[in-house]
Amino acid sequence: MKTFKTAIKSLFNNNTWLILIATIGILTLCFNEKAMAQHKDQIVRIAKIEVDPAQIEQYNTALKEQMTTAVRVEPGVLTYYAVADKATPSHITIFEIYADTAAYQAHIQTPHFKKYKATVEHIVTKLELEDVRLVRVAKKPEM
Amino acid sequence: MKTFKTAIKSLFNNNTWLILIATIGILTLCFNEKAMAQHKDQIVRIAKIEVDPAQIEQYNTALKEQMTTAVRVEPGVLTYYAVADKATPSHITIFEIYADTAAYQAHIQTPHFKKYKATVEHIVTKLELEDVRLVRVAKKPEM
Repeated sequence: MKTFKTAIKSLFNNNTWLILIATIGILTLCFNEKAMAQHKDQIVRIAKIEVDPAQIEQYNTALKEQMTTAVRVEPGVLTYYAVADKATPSHITIFEIYADTAAYQAHIQTPHFKKYKATVEHIVTKLELEDVRLVRVAKKPEM
Repeated sequence: MKTFKTAIKSLFNNNTWLILIATIGILTLCFNEKAMAQHKDQIVRIAKIEVDPAQIEQYNTALKEQMTTAVRVEPGVLTYYAVADKATPSHITIFEIYADTAAYQAHIQTPHFKKYKATVEHIVTKLELEDVRLVRVAKKPEM
């Protein structure tokens, strides 16, 4: 027990990791503030998708995998919000932000995007893309 | 110069503020992770708005003020993304997240929301609200 207490005490006396975490904290807070404005090169888009009602689960699984992978591995894929209409869950809307045109062009050539497109080819019955610009983003820092 | 160095040194030797900032950092990072999932009570909505093309600037000014104030002063107003169609800037889409029904009901009774509604009464020509549920959010931690 004494060893544990000593270990904890020495941990709190070690400024190095505290400075490191403090730096991460400050950077995270700064980036949260920065996210409020649209960078001029950003591509912002709304995708309106209708899928075969019998295959909603398969579609959502493929969509989630694509979104998560793209944001994790591609530096220029910044934001995805995918929502389903409450009354008609086969009507999907995806709000997308890419860093710039090059990031979007690179994205549609990735294996995970091509796999998604091949998987949903016979599930998606309608696809409409709307290019938009951000008027304003306002959100809690934790969102 | 020596006094300045001593002051800086003593600042970095003072664990109290480092622990405080580290805690804020850890909490901020945790909340960023938490934001990925939809809380079951959350109200998620898409508002599709058409405004008089001659009054876009007035509309956008009123909208930005409403959004910013609501997120700043209301604990239950979590997220707004407002976008304008690139080809037809008078077509606005707003993506909204509220903590729960009570938060939304409280929101529409606030002075800033009532002021917005009164200001845009003769600017908005069409308003369509779509209730949706989040399928997935994927975004960079800094977004």
